[in-house]
Amino acid sequence: MATANVKIVLEDADGYTFRAEFPTGHQIKMDIPEESGGADEGPRPMQVMLAALGGCTGIDVMSILNKMKQPVEGYEIHIEADQSEEHPKVYTEIRVTHVIKGDVEDDRAARAVELSSEKYCSVSAQIKQEGTVESDYRLESD
Amino acid sequence: MATANVKIVLEDADGYTFRAEFPTGHQIKMDIPEESGGADEGPRPMQVMLAALGGCTGIDVMSILNKMKQPVEGYEIHIEADQSEEHPKVYTEIRVTHVIKGDVEDDRAARAVELSSEKYCSVSAQIKQEGTVESDYRLESD
Repeated sequence: MATANVKIVLEDADGYTFRAEFPTGHQIKMDIPEESGGADEGPRPMQVMLAALGGCTGIDVMSILNKMKQPVEGYEIHIEADQSEEHPKVYTEIRVTHVIKGDVEDDRAARAVELSSEKYCSVSAQIKQEGTVESDYRLESD
Repeated sequence: MATANVKIVLEDADGYTFRAEFPTGHQIKMDIPEESGGADEGPRPMQVMLAALGGCTGIDVMSILNKMKQPVEGYEIHIEADQSEEHPKVYTEIRVTHVIKGDVEDDRAARAVELSSEKYCSVSAQIKQEGTVESDYRLESD
């Protein structure tokens, strides 16, 4: 069993800008719109989850197409999701369209997308299945 | 029913660097390590999903504590997750610890974390419940 760690830091106690610090050294920011009291310094967390899904399946599909020696020249993933208007505002359906450019064989593309969707993509599997999130807190004062 | 859209673009067909383009105009990159054939230009997608979870619950908790007039001086969210070593490598358990600095009342902090975890945080709810991800593809050649 491997363990993953991510730290999220509120940049300024007067705002809602959160900076995620990854073990790889990379950082991303998330925020809310100015009309909601934020500073719009980054995307919304629910959009970031869709990005994670796209990156995950994209890496899988490219890896599989490369192993199949398919000449990919360009690749985009378009994600569209219906979102509940009741709390919690989950996505009731997520649609992922892989747009692959180059002289790629149709059955190979179909197979690569299927393998990612059904077997390899961890983010997709995490969204599809029931999962466990435990929350706790700790107060610190100087 | 609202709709969300995110586009993910492969930066270079020789690599695995994906750029997510959000409707807000923000962008983030995701990548894989150099030893796996990537360029390490961004975090891994599964880590990005944990960041989305942290940002989501963080924004909720700050918003609730602000409404409760609690004097938050600093705030970090530490996320630790056990990850399966079999495909798909999902998180079998995710633990979220809210570390709140300032003279915040204990019962208010507990309530804010509970409200986010049980009612408001969409990313948490998405991970906890079963969801639907549909995949399709389209080939384009010049």
